[in-house]
Amino acid sequence: MSYGKFITFEGGEGCGKTTQITLLAERMRKAGLAVETLRSPGGTPVAEKLRSILKEPVEKDPLYPETELLLFAACHVQLIRNRIRPLLEKGIWVLCDRFFDSTMVYQGYARGLDLDSVSRVNNFAGCGFEPDLTLLLDLPVETGLQRSTGRGGSATDRFDSETSSFHEKVRNGFLTLAGQFPERFRVISAEGSKEETSILTARAINDEYGLGIL
Amino acid sequence: MSYGKFITFEGGEGCGKTTQITLLAERMRKAGLAVETLRSPGGTPVAEKLRSILKEPVEKDPLYPETELLLFAACHVQLIRNRIRPLLEKGIWVLCDRFFDSTMVYQGYARGLDLDSVSRVNNFAGCGFEPDLTLLLDLPVETGLQRSTGRGGSATDRFDSETSSFHEKVRNGFLTLAGQFPERFRVISAEGSKEETSILTARAINDEYGLGIL
Repeated sequence: MSYGKFITFEGGEGCGKTTQITLLAERMRKAGLAVETLRSPGGTPVAEKLRSILKEPVEKDPLYPETELLLFAACHVQLIRNRIRPLLEKGIWVLCDRFFDSTMVYQGYARGLDLDSVSRVNNFAGCGFEPDLTLLLDLPVETGLQRSTGRGGSATDRFDSETSSFHEKVRNGFLTLAGQFPERFRVISAEGSKEETSILTARAINDEYGLGIL
Repeated sequence: MSYGKFITFEGGEGCGKTTQITLLAERMRKAGLAVETLRSPGGTPVAEKLRSILKEPVEKDPLYPETELLLFAACHVQLIRNRIRPLLEKGIWVLCDRFFDSTMVYQGYARGLDLDSVSRVNNFAGCGFEPDLTLLLDLPVETGLQRSTGRGGSATDRFDSETSSFHEKVRNGFLTLAGQFPERFRVISAEGSKEETSILTARAINDEYGLGIL
């Protein structure tokens, strides 16, 4: 039996990662593949506890970007070893909502931590483990924020309630990484409808792995 | 007004750090100094949440040494910036039960993580911040384990329920660090009674800072 592939979804606010992961997983399952969907931070009991620390601000104990980076990295250690690797070894494909690249972009490019430090902490957590493929859902910041506000509620999230210039840094950060790692990244326009983006996503998977999921 | 000093207590199981910190804080307060006692991991709301993740094993999601290191480092970022520095700036002396050196010893020397990696993660969390003085309470492993067992209960703690060879690595690790950083470390024998060790501890503080707390 062959190993599963580890495919990550990246992108800024309102780009539709969660929806696209659900749609892609459905297509893949219809084609007979075993698929698991995960999210980062999260995906193991310890990582879910860390997720709630990252998402719920404590007024008297504000989180520093360094703390965020270290906690994301801790989540990734647990997620890789206790979930992702065992799934891949069973031949299950894993679709993950955010991973190392988000840490690089949010804590590095956007919050201004030294990129080498972020990279070193990510590498320490990963021990050489990387996504097989990363789909970057790209769209203009303005469009993303409109969609995100439209869906309601999320504006209270720590990472969602940032300024527009922060989101520009996020978008540019992701595009920079995609340029640096063209073998691993595929940039997909998320400007169209859900269905249109879903077709572009499925096509990228078909092109990469010779599947017929469209 | 002058800054407070940041003094850390280190040592293996049963060395009596907690007791000695209490006794030293009493002596210092009697001498008119403002003193706060803290513990690592812990000391801020976020760091206390991380402490409980570190101390309470989850059967289905065992913690890796890499995760431990990253979580300790995250605790240290929060503890330094949201507690220790503000206290020192107010002229308050801070006595802390464990700090970076414990991470180096437990995750590095004892659990076998690469020492350079541990050091880099510690430096990233500390951004150049270091204890002014570190008191290493040293005693033979056998004596420490007997005292620790005698005090009951703690044998269920993840870090307490290790083998004797693990504790030897811990003791040797601390002594190695003390040898590497003689300016900062003072090695104090904890083999005597609480009162005897307390006198040795107070004497070390007197020698270092010209106080008269004995």
